[in-house]
Amino acid sequence: MPARARDFGLVCGTLPPGPLNAITDVAGVRVGHWTLREGDLMTGFTAILPHGDDLFRWKLRGGVEVVNGFGKSAGLMQLAELGQIETPILLGNTLSVGTGFNALVTRALQANPDIGRETGTVNPLVLECNDGFLSDIRARALTEADAFAALDVAAAGPVAEGAVGAGAGMSAFGFKGGIGSASRLIVLDGKTYALGVLVLANFGRAGDLVLPDGRRTVPPEAPAAGQPERGSVIIVLATDIPMETRQLTRVARRCGAGLARLGAFWGNGSGDIALAFSTAGRIAHHEPADFVAMQALNENSIDGPFRAAAEATQEAVLNAMLAAPATSGRDGHWRPSLADALSRAD
Amino acid sequence: MPARARDFGLVCGTLPPGPLNAITDVAGVRVGHWTLREGDLMTGFTAILPHGDDLFRWKLRGGVEVVNGFGKSAGLMQLAELGQIETPILLGNTLSVGTGFNALVTRALQANPDIGRETGTVNPLVLECNDGFLSDIRARALTEADAFAALDVAAAGPVAEGAVGAGAGMSAFGFKGGIGSASRLIVLDGKTYALGVLVLANFGRAGDLVLPDGRRTVPPEAPAAGQPERGSVIIVLATDIPMETRQLTRVARRCGAGLARLGAFWGNGSGDIALAFSTAGRIAHHEPADFVAMQALNENSIDGPFRAAAEATQEAVLNAMLAAPATSGRDGHWRPSLADALSRAD
Amino acid sequence: MPARARDFGLVCGTLPPGPLNAITDVAGVRVGHWTLREGDLMTGFTAILPHGDDLFRWKLRGGVEVVNGFGKSAGLMQLAELGQIETPILLGNTLSVGTGFNALVTRALQANPDIGRETGTVNPLVLECNDGFLSDIRARALTEADAFAALDVAAAGPVAEGAVGAGAGMSAFGFKGGIGSASRLIVLDGKTYALGVLVLANFGRAGDLVLPDGRRTVPPEAPAAGQPERGSVIIVLATDIPMETRQLTRVARRCGAGLARLGAFWGNGSGDIALAFSTAGRIAHHEPADFVAMQALNENSIDGPFRAAAEATQEAVLNAMLAAPATSGRDGHWRPSLADALSRAD
Amino acid sequence: MPARARDFGLVCGTLPPGPLNAITDVAGVRVGHWTLREGDLMTGFTAILPHGDDLFRWKLRGGVEVVNGFGKSAGLMQLAELGQIETPILLGNTLSVGTGFNALVTRALQANPDIGRETGTVNPLVLECNDGFLSDIRARALTEADAFAALDVAAAGPVAEGAVGAGAGMSAFGFKGGIGSASRLIVLDGKTYALGVLVLANFGRAGDLVLPDGRRTVPPEAPAAGQPERGSVIIVLATDIPMETRQLTRVARRCGAGLARLGAFWGNGSGDIALAFSTAGRIAHHEPADFVAMQALNENSIDGPFRAAAEATQEAVLNAMLAAPATSGRDGHWRPSLADALSRAD
Repeated sequence: MPARARDFGLVCGTLPPGPLNAITDVAGVRVGHWTLREGDLMTGFTAILPHGDDLFRWKLRGGVEVVNGFGKSAGLMQLAELGQIETPILLGNTLSVGTGFNALVTRALQANPDIGRETGTVNPLVLECNDGFLSDIRARALTEADAFAALDVAAAGPVAEGAVGAGAGMSAFGFKGGIGSASRLIVLDGKTYALGVLVLANFGRAGDLVLPDGRRTVPPEAPAAGQPERGSVIIVLATDIPMETRQLTRVARRCGAGLARLGAFWGNGSGDIALAFSTAGRIAHHEPADFVAMQALNENSIDGPFRAAAEATQEAVLNAMLAAPATSGRDGHWRPSLADALSRAD
Repeated sequence: MPARARDFGLVCGTLPPGPLNAITDVAGVRVGHWTLREGDLMTGFTAILPHGDDLFRWKLRGGVEVVNGFGKSAGLMQLAELGQIETPILLGNTLSVGTGFNALVTRALQANPDIGRETGTVNPLVLECNDGFLSDIRARALTEADAFAALDVAAAGPVAEGAVGAGAGMSAFGFKGGIGSASRLIVLDGKTYALGVLVLANFGRAGDLVLPDGRRTVPPEAPAAGQPERGSVIIVLATDIPMETRQLTRVARRCGAGLARLGAFWGNGSGDIALAFSTAGRIAHHEPADFVAMQALNENSIDGPFRAAAEATQEAVLNAMLAAPATSGRDGHWRPSLADALSRAD
Repeated sequence: MPARARDFGLVCGTLPPGPLNAITDVAGVRVGHWTLREGDLMTGFTAILPHGDDLFRWKLRGGVEVVNGFGKSAGLMQLAELGQIETPILLGNTLSVGTGFNALVTRALQANPDIGRETGTVNPLVLECNDGFLSDIRARALTEADAFAALDVAAAGPVAEGAVGAGAGMSAFGFKGGIGSASRLIVLDGKTYALGVLVLANFGRAGDLVLPDGRRTVPPEAPAAGQPERGSVIIVLATDIPMETRQLTRVARRCGAGLARLGAFWGNGSGDIALAFSTAGRIAHHEPADFVAMQALNENSIDGPFRAAAEATQEAVLNAMLAAPATSGRDGHWRPSLADALSRAD
Repeated sequence: MPARARDFGLVCGTLPPGPLNAITDVAGVRVGHWTLREGDLMTGFTAILPHGDDLFRWKLRGGVEVVNGFGKSAGLMQLAELGQIETPILLGNTLSVGTGFNALVTRALQANPDIGRETGTVNPLVLECNDGFLSDIRARALTEADAFAALDVAAAGPVAEGAVGAGAGMSAFGFKGGIGSASRLIVLDGKTYALGVLVLANFGRAGDLVLPDGRRTVPPEAPAAGQPERGSVIIVLATDIPMETRQLTRVARRCGAGLARLGAFWGNGSGDIALAFSTAGRIAHHEPADFVAMQALNENSIDGPFRAAAEATQEAVLNAMLAAPATSGRDGHWRPSLADALSRAD
């Protein structure tokens, strides 16, 4: 099993992590990866399933923060307006958003014969980064079947990290990037709640990375001259804390603080998006009542989730980088591993 | 008692109005006016008190829509972030915002010895329009005492409309403008709820006004040549429907539709602001629990409040204009009365 | 040639229309429709091409206003962040967004071998409404080839309106809806500029429509009982007026005023989106300089474009409805024609 | 002269600072402080004057980022809408915003006899933090005369830092906070430009501070039990780089990254606001032309200003803290000095 940040003595912040230190510490959340490695292809889909039932029938409250909007993600406008998620969340590469959209529609239509008939349509959530440095993104190799595969293998338990699923071809701070996860526990009204994040880390200029202990770690080889960074980072945040949608949006915003602590400044070309949802309080698509009871978080108690969002994001990115091995990709492009750099440093 | 839109056969939309057809149809809401008329001065404060207790101690959920942000209102940033109102709402003229701010702070400090000591500060809500066409706004004649007067006379029951309080010197569509109110009733889960608005109408180009029956009504005298319009309109919306703050913000946005139906296009120089609050579900400043129970509106049931917000805004503006008599002000500036124009037309 | 609003004596506002009274009054703008009619299918794509060269290489300034975000459009997040459009704009049905995304990517990759290699990716703009009332949207019949067809037939000159292209299966205010267009001319610094809109009109409750002369026109048959409206409206606004991107966003917002004047209140389930671009001042993808000269509009002169946006949107919707014939669709669903209703009324 | 971060070997980022390493490295920018120390009072105003002429007559392009909106600042709504600043920027304590508003109005009316007569009103910019921990904020001791004093002493050259002007009573991360400044130089098209920030630092939980070298520095005494933090931070960013207003807003956003690098997570009760303006390209209030020529920054060149905003913000906060001595205030409240803590650590 690949090392994680804490194996290197790197701890982000002060809140305790959950048992898995992963998004799956939030009960019911499942993650699935499907990786495509073949010739110049190094890409894939990662699926996050917020609960085990049909999401169109049983929506969850959500919010989104666009830290920097250079990105092609689908579904965020309606999420911002209605505060609801109604499909699983798919992560893929930039040019696969259309295919991911189609795959989620296919599944929603299969499960819900009333969509487009007696009821409205469905809002697929697809987020992306550009893995074109290591992988042949122009080949547009990912298919709907690949998306289904990621959805179908989704499971609870430890989350595979590094060069896996949508993270297969990603880069971060001049190193190999990819999928990472982390979580924090928060006690509210005497009960312990979990807040977990999963990141698709593909951002950061070489040389900008700052470790939690203040060390700067520059990749052994500078990026090819004239090769501008074209990164992005997607953060999916899950929690079982009940919140208003405005509150979830505020919590999502704090993921950006976690990125900044790593040395990022949310560069112009980086699509940095944080999507948050709460598993507390399902919203029935066919709710007959005009009013629904819910729990909101006392606004004075929101600093715990804020802090957790920043810490878990920071640590999840480090987990993503440390789990990813040095990698050669398309046209001889190469990304070293942060784990190797840290080992050498020790 | 001045005539209202329905006295002229002008009805906006299809929902039924409340008994008063005013913001005070929402139980607990009180309105107070203080008018200053003296020489070249024709101005005042209008206060809206959402409930009868201390608002800092017992906050309400609120939201705001900036239809067009050419305005100097105070307190909206924090309202948007936290979704809470914690002072009465003061309406005045543009240059009186600082004084209104000070007045609300004075009252909050008096009532809450812990502000600025054991607890934080307070977020005063002051909204404004520019009455400088008819009144000597440069005189800055309004004092904190005037604001207190408006707060102290606030009462339930019918709302005085037209050239009263903050509306004393306002203009709309080339006619005399001012304060207007209207309300709509909505049945949800078998219970009747009220949604009411109060407007401070000081917007619209002469000749742009369209009545609900399609008639265009141009003021008998064009505005002085070279006299650009410098309007604005403030809309305060109250309801007893429980909602999430995101929902209140969505409802507030629909007030802009009511303005557009009158012929407005939210001109560059017009500060068009809609502030909405719900009297359902007070938020305790010293809430000890981390979670609070609340009711949210089923999002599929929100079209009623949307429609009500648009209709009531449209009608409140007409009420404001119809209640205001033809008025001569500063430097011989003159505004005719819409009521006179409609009577002549009949 | 189908009738237009002015043929029925319906004029929206006071500004003069351009020679075509269409978006194509803006020099260089082309529009193409591809309609699919077959059995239960009544759908299509409409393409708007802002200029005749490669948009990825020569971007234009743009802005977007989300009047109500219940929609699945692609590409708006990046447009809001960067203020640039870099692909043609495709309009289709809700479930065809993934396919439209793929089609625009295919074309961009063909024309730009450096995408995903030496340079970044591309941000496809796809907007949509739900035509599922009249057409079998679950069939997902539109293909990339259909999108190419719409792009390839794009032309200057008069714009086909009504039940054509993406408008084939759309409805509005209980009548048949579809594609409509209108324009306004504005003189600035002594030169005449054009502002044109194209709408995909699929919104509005039966009975809510208000004509510019104040008449209300209710469709002869109420919608099927229990059949909730599931509308949306897309507005694409083009102009040759040079503006900052913030200004374009402000102008886009005024399209919502045009909708409200028709009786809409931007219902919960309606994805009401306005996208605006200026053909003045292309932005080179490979611009070598750090600074680029541009013209900005004097903010005090923006009321003309504001008014034009509201007027043209209102009139374009009427043009869409009046050009569309009464239509029978999927499962015997039927939409009458507004033109028939008005003729009968005469 | 008090020490600055670089005297302690603390450097934030990699870009070179300007000669003063202060906001006044941007030509024309002047800063003035007025401090009130008397009994339990430890407060003041700080004024930033963007250029030497009348700002109402000669406006500048500006933008604002609300990192967290728990604050009472005035003038930001109109700045966001129009992208213009038209008064100097005043920083004060939370309850002095009304007085600051009045002071800026007074000055604008004096200089512009047409305000409120032939032309519109003026939009005063007043930002604030809560200094109530050390100072008797309930006394509301600041007067218009105090604001005038800050405006009148504004000067170019080095900026006084620490417990001065509005910073007199502020706290940060459990230490004494206050006013700090820093700058960065950026070469664009072969010419050197400056970007400088001035912060009013009053934010951060004790124990959260992370120095640029990774050290954590906890104040020697924990804050009084039960004393919740009630912080905020105001960042004013000036540059001579020409930009569109949308670009200035993007740059302002990156100030939040600088805060996060210090260990902040933009806490619930912290009003964290960044206001940015460019001294390039004045906007004439009485501009007769409909179009104005301007330079915009190539969006691909914006990473330099982004990086500069983050770095300068981070360093300005450290400068604020290091210049401020240990301080006893109201009711025996005490804040240690970061400089003392670092010296002891050496």
